[in-house]
Amino acid sequence: MANAVTLSDRGRLMPASPIRKLVPYADAAKARGVHVYHLNIGQPDIETPPAMIEAYRTLDRKVIEYGPSGGLVTYVKALAGYYGRVGLDVDPSQILVTTGGSEALAFVFQAVAGVGDEIIVPEPFYANYNGFAVMSGVTIVPVATRAEDGFALPARERFEERITARTRAILFCNPGNPTGAVYTREEMSMLEGLAADHGLFLIADEVYREFVYDGVEHVSVLDLPAVTDRAVLVDSISKQYSACGARVGCIVSRNEELMATVLKFGQARLCPPTVDQIAATAAMSVPDSYFEGVREEYVKRRDLTCDALASMPGVICQKPRGAFYTVAKLPVEDAEQFAVFLLDGFELDRETVMVAPAAGFYATAGAGRDEVRIAYVLNTTDLEKAMRAFEAGLEAFGRGR
Amino acid sequence: MANAVTLSDRGRLMPASPIRKLVPYADAAKARGVHVYHLNIGQPDIETPPAMIEAYRTLDRKVIEYGPSGGLVTYVKALAGYYGRVGLDVDPSQILVTTGGSEALAFVFQAVAGVGDEIIVPEPFYANYNGFAVMSGVTIVPVATRAEDGFALPARERFEERITARTRAILFCNPGNPTGAVYTREEMSMLEGLAADHGLFLIADEVYREFVYDGVEHVSVLDLPAVTDRAVLVDSISKQYSACGARVGCIVSRNEELMATVLKFGQARLCPPTVDQIAATAAMSVPDSYFEGVREEYVKRRDLTCDALASMPGVICQKPRGAFYTVAKLPVEDAEQFAVFLLDGFELDRETVMVAPAAGFYATAGAGRDEVRIAYVLNTTDLEKAMRAFEAGLEAFGRGR
Repeated sequence: MANAVTLSDRGRLMPASPIRKLVPYADAAKARGVHVYHLNIGQPDIETPPAMIEAYRTLDRKVIEYGPSGGLVTYVKALAGYYGRVGLDVDPSQILVTTGGSEALAFVFQAVAGVGDEIIVPEPFYANYNGFAVMSGVTIVPVATRAEDGFALPARERFEERITARTRAILFCNPGNPTGAVYTREEMSMLEGLAADHGLFLIADEVYREFVYDGVEHVSVLDLPAVTDRAVLVDSISKQYSACGARVGCIVSRNEELMATVLKFGQARLCPPTVDQIAATAAMSVPDSYFEGVREEYVKRRDLTCDALASMPGVICQKPRGAFYTVAKLPVEDAEQFAVFLLDGFELDRETVMVAPAAGFYATAGAGRDEVRIAYVLNTTDLEKAMRAFEAGLEAFGRGR
Repeated sequence: MANAVTLSDRGRLMPASPIRKLVPYADAAKARGVHVYHLNIGQPDIETPPAMIEAYRTLDRKVIEYGPSGGLVTYVKALAGYYGRVGLDVDPSQILVTTGGSEALAFVFQAVAGVGDEIIVPEPFYANYNGFAVMSGVTIVPVATRAEDGFALPARERFEERITARTRAILFCNPGNPTGAVYTREEMSMLEGLAADHGLFLIADEVYREFVYDGVEHVSVLDLPAVTDRAVLVDSISKQYSACGARVGCIVSRNEELMATVLKFGQARLCPPTVDQIAATAAMSVPDSYFEGVREEYVKRRDLTCDALASMPGVICQKPRGAFYTVAKLPVEDAEQFAVFLLDGFELDRETVMVAPAAGFYATAGAGRDEVRIAYVLNTTDLEKAMRAFEAGLEAFGRGR
């Protein structure tokens, strides 16, 4: 025993990606010459704003130095300007720049919750929240939402019955990944009251904040007066400027103690990427019309995808109001089996489609087994073909059972 | 009590930066028009290789996409090539690209040690190890080394007496920050035997691996046959290519289970910066002559700095063989007080110098109180002036007490 070498159990506890099992099947399909439409991942095909690309191309530095741990001062100021333009009064001292929204989430988990503490999250939720929970020794406590209700938040009581002495925060993604749900003013007020009454942090992952459709209002967590000291915004340029590989995100909060704490975490990792921040600063000057064009495009994609899904027999898909995902309930028992079938047992005109089984977005065992997440991140021509393949696949899968 | 909002104790436990107290004094000195030579931080003034800068400037992408969680395939292959050239047989599957050496350290802490586990580290050590320890709930157990011995490793027994049932690894920085010490083949064999006999991981932070002087051999942790399955290398381009703000590092290990685990952590944060990796790939083609030139420059700087220090009455400074730091023992009781004095109570021809009090690099309370870390990262002209100011300051401080 003395010389056995063992890892910590964190690795074992880390959840596998919801699509991990599918990848070899997708590779095999491609090897057979079958074209696979990837609706399984939130990697948009939208072009990064040229002004941002240009910032890399005109880089004028002889030494790529460390920046401040909290972010480049010029970028932080530009960010504060952006929040001001969307109606949120944010001081630069209330912003910490992070290496993507991922690091922002990791830092916030660490700051608000100790080992053994709990964070309540409406499910289905972004699967990587599980990863940050494991890494920080925090437990995620799910509260159910349903496809039939468009994944709207349940009544306040459903949250309250999950609150314990270890509960530290409520975390939610708005607009939602994987659901696309955008919470109404009423839902946000309910969360506000809950956090205020129970002394909880309210952590909003708003990385899809610019992707809200149909004239719906997006209510930011920073726009809730009763929780000024406990609201935490997690943001990122990844989706906003279609720059997922530029690892730049941020934490915004008016809680000074929290900001001092996350800055300490930031100091331990020195700084976020310098050149990506220079590029992100350039992105901040992109005019509003950029988002308008992007939103128009996504509305077309969403309508095409959701209308197609809703027309399929037995499929439940409420048209979501934000982000670029939808979770559809399928007339199948095991959506993972179906997702494998699409790649392994089926093709339509040498084409097929890859989707993410939704069970991986639930913490409750067995939940979401008949659901898939579809990311409508391709152009409408491709999406149309992808949905045709999906429908034919669903039919074929039904016949096969 | 119900509505009190509280943070976790991780923030409180996070150690402050060793130079935190000095920063306002440095700012005030500058405001008074006094020039401050920064020997307090490892930010080299060496130019980033032009080929790397050029890679940003010729970026040819329309979308800055996510890369693979383990790193861009081309970059991983280039890295394997680099290790091959320096005599280490590394397969691309044994490499995970990280967001700087910082993330590599955080992932390795998480992978090898659970909450409450212990990692043994020779002190003084890189202060941010404390931060990663707090964030992962791991305890650092120090083993003393001394300025008088050039910070060489102590006898194996000194390590063995710190090993408990919770010990999971020995972590060391080689060449060392803050000491500049380069471990001999004998010291490395001692660690190898220790790790093999006690079933511990051996984690080597080799981010200064190219900064070894005087023809001394650098023995990598990957070059220890008895610990093939428990050797973990942490590396980074930050110092190597003077590109600290390009956040690109890596973990290298032949332990498949460990690599699978850190890949899971990597998946949770999606990917390291895409464009920085493209630039890092370009850096890999920089010829060996680049390092030779850099080493020559640092040897000059080291000799100037250490010769100056050694000539000062009561100062102990063994000339280190690597990195670009040295820890000097001073004839003062409280080196932090002296460091403040240099900024606040002293100037020589409108100039002074900022150094890092070394106590922050020790885990043992009270250790290193009479030591400072000096980073010889400025050109020799500036260094000479800085050391002149340092000597005059030390004299003035002595007279004042």
